[in-house]
Amino acid sequence: MSHHDLTQFRHTGTLYLSAPEAAELVRRHGLERCIATVASHIREDFLRWIDFDKTARVAAHSRDGVIELMPVADQHRYSFKYVNGHPGNTRFGLSTVMAFGVLADVDTGAPLLLSELTLTTAIRTAAMSALAAQVLARPDSRVMALIGNGAQSEFQAIAFQHLLGITELRLYDVDPAATAKLVANLQDRGLTLTICRSTAEAVRGADIVTTVTADKACATIVTPDMIEPGMHLNAVGGDCPGKTELHGDILDQAKVFVEYEPQSRIEGEIQHKAADFAVTEFWQVLHGERAGRDDAAQVTVFDSVGFALEDFSALRFMYDTANALGLGERITLIPQLADPKNLFGSLRSQTVAHTRLELETVLT
Amino acid sequence: MSHHDLTQFRHTGTLYLSAPEAAELVRRHGLERCIATVASHIREDFLRWIDFDKTARVAAHSRDGVIELMPVADQHRYSFKYVNGHPGNTRFGLSTVMAFGVLADVDTGAPLLLSELTLTTAIRTAAMSALAAQVLARPDSRVMALIGNGAQSEFQAIAFQHLLGITELRLYDVDPAATAKLVANLQDRGLTLTICRSTAEAVRGADIVTTVTADKACATIVTPDMIEPGMHLNAVGGDCPGKTELHGDILDQAKVFVEYEPQSRIEGEIQHKAADFAVTEFWQVLHGERAGRDDAAQVTVFDSVGFALEDFSALRFMYDTANALGLGERITLIPQLADPKNLFGSLRSQTVAHTRLELETVLT
Repeated sequence: MSHHDLTQFRHTGTLYLSAPEAAELVRRHGLERCIATVASHIREDFLRWIDFDKTARVAAHSRDGVIELMPVADQHRYSFKYVNGHPGNTRFGLSTVMAFGVLADVDTGAPLLLSELTLTTAIRTAAMSALAAQVLARPDSRVMALIGNGAQSEFQAIAFQHLLGITELRLYDVDPAATAKLVANLQDRGLTLTICRSTAEAVRGADIVTTVTADKACATIVTPDMIEPGMHLNAVGGDCPGKTELHGDILDQAKVFVEYEPQSRIEGEIQHKAADFAVTEFWQVLHGERAGRDDAAQVTVFDSVGFALEDFSALRFMYDTANALGLGERITLIPQLADPKNLFGSLRSQTVAHTRLELETVLT
Repeated sequence: MSHHDLTQFRHTGTLYLSAPEAAELVRRHGLERCIATVASHIREDFLRWIDFDKTARVAAHSRDGVIELMPVADQHRYSFKYVNGHPGNTRFGLSTVMAFGVLADVDTGAPLLLSELTLTTAIRTAAMSALAAQVLARPDSRVMALIGNGAQSEFQAIAFQHLLGITELRLYDVDPAATAKLVANLQDRGLTLTICRSTAEAVRGADIVTTVTADKACATIVTPDMIEPGMHLNAVGGDCPGKTELHGDILDQAKVFVEYEPQSRIEGEIQHKAADFAVTEFWQVLHGERAGRDDAAQVTVFDSVGFALEDFSALRFMYDTANALGLGERITLIPQLADPKNLFGSLRSQTVAHTRLELETVLT
């Protein structure tokens, strides 16, 4: 790692960015600017795709959900994200998706940053969706259907407004309260918001269709009869085995783009298709190796499942921005040893007790 | 998860146990008692081996080392460990092995505990080694060779003294300063400590041979000529592809035990052997399904690489003990939302700024 990072780690430990501090970072930096910068970081990192040691995420499935680890590394930095998906969590007052992650130094293994990634995942997912649509959707796209109006939806809306020039959103959610919440959150942002009574109504006339639903089921939220020539489908919600959003026939009639093919074959909309079903990895289009949209009438599908590299990009954004803004605190996740071969010796010192004593002395 | 854990997480977030707090926990609970309790937890968890969703760890190799993620789960709890191995780290004043991990709730994905695992890994590795030796070594074992006197060595020594009744240690390290450190750390513990000038000298006459070296190379630290009938070899240091400690012929003449066969085939001493080289998974011996040592003259090898389930056992020990002792602090790694579907709304609140302002008011 850089000499600066190493020195900082040795003297002050790991930078920790809590959920409230990350929200503060986004408020100070500006949400639109955060999304745009993360999209730019994702673009940079996808352009050097071959530099990365990539792996499909490691998932632990259970009755009610899934817990996943998503590692990735280049020659200098390593990152991983912990993320769950539990559609029933809102019953307990918990989020469906909760996440955190770490950015580490490859040369030493030192964890430089521990960050919340719940808010950050919403930002990076929206940034990835918008980046893909910049490349794949028709340039004159102005109307987007937004199916699923939960925790991720506002971020998608703002990303597409600012990075694509979307001016009208057509909204649908099985839960009208979710749509009402979205409208309340976005009412002053210069977007035309149209509440629809069905997916079909929302999709009608849209240039882009974004699906961001949470059910852990092979739902068929969008059917072939809804599809119009030239549409771009941004399928965000289907992201694990047994969780899809599009009718299979749609894929047969469209050109399908994925993030990382080995993972998407397991988790994406294409999980029901044959192993040789044709897909294009998005980085190849960015890199100029493969064509994106072939003509204005073609239907394009970004079969997005979320790939570890997007979190890598987001984590380096959070790390640099937190350092620049002086946000976060330093934590001792790793013992700071005078002699690193003498871990046992660290049991002799009374650091915690002394610190407490000093604190008590100050406070009394 | 239990109603208590869920309520605690919702109201106060994730329990965070820093490296200094973990050291304080070990001091208060007692190192010998920590090792014994973790060994007991490992035994319990290995006895219900089939309840766990197991996977070989996910490793990212680089020029100077490796960074690994080690997840495992049963129906109730999920854990993972982040751990690196960088033999050159001591040059930078950093530990060769640094680790941290999380214990989470399977039903919701909520991270209950974030803990340092550098010190804890040393404890759980020693506990695992001693547990295996209790089952596999000759019951009359009293003398142990300890090859490699680095950060892990004192923990191995104390585990074998207290769980096996080892009374004499024969020490060797390529770095005499490491051995001197070990002797200084253990001099008042009632062990006979003999400093040797070579591995061969240390191994001669030993009942148990523990190798815990750190070089990332196929070293041949122990050779067939050193082996005596009835020895138990506790091979701890060889734990990733290209990193072994025993001459291959030793394995051919011994009975070899592993933790989790799919991982050990990649990482263990057996990585150079054919895919059908006979091994016994240790849990099968504990469970009574397979025999351990067949007779007093047999040479047994515990080809240990460190398995995620051992960290699971250690994390539940740390969680319960930290809660019982009131150690650790609560952190907001996950946003605490009034409405979990309204992540966007969390950007509106000014929690951090207000807290800071209040703090500044108090301090001035």
